[in-house]
Amino acid sequence: MSLFLQLVSVSKAVAEIRNLAVKCGDESVPLLEAFHRILARDVHADVDIPGFTRSIVDGFAVRAADTTGSGDAIPSMLNLQGRVAMGVSLNHRIKSGDCIYVPTGGILPEGADAVVMIEHAEQLGEEILVRKPVAHGENVLFFNEDFSSGEVVCNKGRRLTSQDIGVLAAAGCTDVPVVKIPRVGIISTGNELVQVSQKPMPGQVRDVNSYVVASFVREHGCRPVLYGIVRDDREALRSAISHATVECDAVMISGGSSKDDRDMVAAIIAERGSVLVHGIAIAPGKPTIIGKCDGKPVIGLPGHPASAFIVLIAIVRHLITAMTGETGSNMQTFQATLGQNVPSSKGREDYVRVAVKDGIATPLFGKSGLLNTLVRSTGVIRVPAESEGLETGTQVEVMIW
Amino acid sequence: MSLFLQLVSVSKAVAEIRNLAVKCGDESVPLLEAFHRILARDVHADVDIPGFTRSIVDGFAVRAADTTGSGDAIPSMLNLQGRVAMGVSLNHRIKSGDCIYVPTGGILPEGADAVVMIEHAEQLGEEILVRKPVAHGENVLFFNEDFSSGEVVCNKGRRLTSQDIGVLAAAGCTDVPVVKIPRVGIISTGNELVQVSQKPMPGQVRDVNSYVVASFVREHGCRPVLYGIVRDDREALRSAISHATVECDAVMISGGSSKDDRDMVAAIIAERGSVLVHGIAIAPGKPTIIGKCDGKPVIGLPGHPASAFIVLIAIVRHLITAMTGETGSNMQTFQATLGQNVPSSKGREDYVRVAVKDGIATPLFGKSGLLNTLVRSTGVIRVPAESEGLETGTQVEVMIW
Repeated sequence: MSLFLQLVSVSKAVAEIRNLAVKCGDESVPLLEAFHRILARDVHADVDIPGFTRSIVDGFAVRAADTTGSGDAIPSMLNLQGRVAMGVSLNHRIKSGDCIYVPTGGILPEGADAVVMIEHAEQLGEEILVRKPVAHGENVLFFNEDFSSGEVVCNKGRRLTSQDIGVLAAAGCTDVPVVKIPRVGIISTGNELVQVSQKPMPGQVRDVNSYVVASFVREHGCRPVLYGIVRDDREALRSAISHATVECDAVMISGGSSKDDRDMVAAIIAERGSVLVHGIAIAPGKPTIIGKCDGKPVIGLPGHPASAFIVLIAIVRHLITAMTGETGSNMQTFQATLGQNVPSSKGREDYVRVAVKDGIATPLFGKSGLLNTLVRSTGVIRVPAESEGLETGTQVEVMIW
Repeated sequence: MSLFLQLVSVSKAVAEIRNLAVKCGDESVPLLEAFHRILARDVHADVDIPGFTRSIVDGFAVRAADTTGSGDAIPSMLNLQGRVAMGVSLNHRIKSGDCIYVPTGGILPEGADAVVMIEHAEQLGEEILVRKPVAHGENVLFFNEDFSSGEVVCNKGRRLTSQDIGVLAAAGCTDVPVVKIPRVGIISTGNELVQVSQKPMPGQVRDVNSYVVASFVREHGCRPVLYGIVRDDREALRSAISHATVECDAVMISGGSSKDDRDMVAAIIAERGSVLVHGIAIAPGKPTIIGKCDGKPVIGLPGHPASAFIVLIAIVRHLITAMTGETGSNMQTFQATLGQNVPSSKGREDYVRVAVKDGIATPLFGKSGLLNTLVRSTGVIRVPAESEGLETGTQVEVMIW
């Protein structure tokens, strides 16, 4: 195998990895369990929302026109015709000059088109003084103003937020069609690795990657399945990969940090399937492998956790969205102003950690292998491959960790 | 009880609610389960990280000074003295003019202070041509450069991210001290409420709030405990509150949307403890109750889901951080430029939904009771109580849903 990796661009790597994704199928879960899951089908409202025109304040249902010009000095005076009780429709049509007390959420009487808040009115016997005019529709939610029956309330592919769960509740969706949670197998390789519970001897390092990868895929809605540390031994690695591809929807092999180890990982993937990418024009994270075994995507991540983490964000994240069909971005981003020049090599996509404060993104330079800057930073910015760097003052998109 | 609420400011309400918080105690969980939990104690590195000076690339360990001025035209020429194997220390000290092959993660031989990447070198028999100079420390992680033994790697009160989990792994933290998950009891009241599985009749609405509140508190690291729909009946409500305060760390009563219902909720809280706040100068969300029963915080949320959601974000969120001791914000925010004027009433803190695109926050006006704008928006901006509105072009902080 060549001494040099055949680097492909990040966009090519993302396209390859998305192609490999195996769809996970759907299932139905109770509404309370659906939070943060990906919606598998459009959900339609089964009723009009709201199902009746209602007041959104406690106050007096009126014809808005009757309140025109009213104020503290010259209030409008209306005749109180009764009270609406919660959940009950009042058989009384409001005529000009009338008003009816209505509680928050109560059905607006016919003829009324607005509600004067109780704070802006005063009761004098059977008369109500209105001290502030209301416009047509003020303090009222009209019949089906929010959603009409049959309308899509939540689109397929959406990762469900708290508000979405509320909308699904309003739409009568008790069992929610969601995408099954992808299972991601995680293998750590390297003779230098020891368990986290062990104290590393000189030359040894703890198996950090199993935990970083597991947490990352869990954060992105997958179920991690750990296969532990596998020695740099062809037979052991072959067997671990073959178990993992049977049991999981995708497999991450992290490490094989040295060239020889990586070549062994690539050789085993090639033997059981194919290697599509071996080396990506990205920093950090260059020695990444994208392959396929037994019909499942198998990704070789860099051995160093800080580099592996960038590859998870830049590349693997897209595999996950392709598996789940998530339509939005599964990464929170925001705009910030770069506070310092960032040099970069042309032809390579650089991922630079930044700390953001008051809208200013300050690059945290230093070695990409450090965990401490990974923890101290707010997120990461991308320097495109065609750029030789970014200048102070540039608007950048920060991907938040 | 007065017709008018005695409004308190948002900051006063937040201070009151933080005061009520009951700390939840700590527990220890396996590292793999610690993701997104709140760290209960500072965690220190039990070893130096890295524990030895190591290469972060495949290449040739050198004295950096030996490569000064090297280039494609005039490469430096060094004598290859051997190869480092993974996890093994080589008993060979590099002298000027020497180099040793070292794999990624391998122990740097003594005397070397940098590594030339394999891509920038060429082997001719026992000689290595170096085509690019390296600086002192380049491609090397020095002994304890990341963390020193005993150093705090992760601070108490932090909500653990994927990277934090990696750092804890590196620090040898197999069992993680975390804050116990707060239990939040959720009661929905209102005679107009029906189960989500039912079709509402005129005047009725589905119990959306139980689901919105449950998802929100889950998102913020609590365990929701649902007590279902309780009729607007003193005895039923009293009994539900008393069960919930025994079983949970905090209780949310949502609804009692009309003034009479709210007054009943407030009266029951007062009877079993005390009402500290009844009405907040916030829009939407004014008719919020903050109280205490049986030593536990009991919050009366507005009946309308869209208003309740704003109160969760503006007020209840701070109760959760006070219960868990989370030090960071539990709300993701970013800066954006306001794309349109936002009018507001002085003396009231307004929460206005915005859709953010390319750094421009466009307010989604329309009635605060609509669920559809809650779902269509990116987040919400706060118009301070002392302001009469915000002008186009103002920098605003967007709280992302």
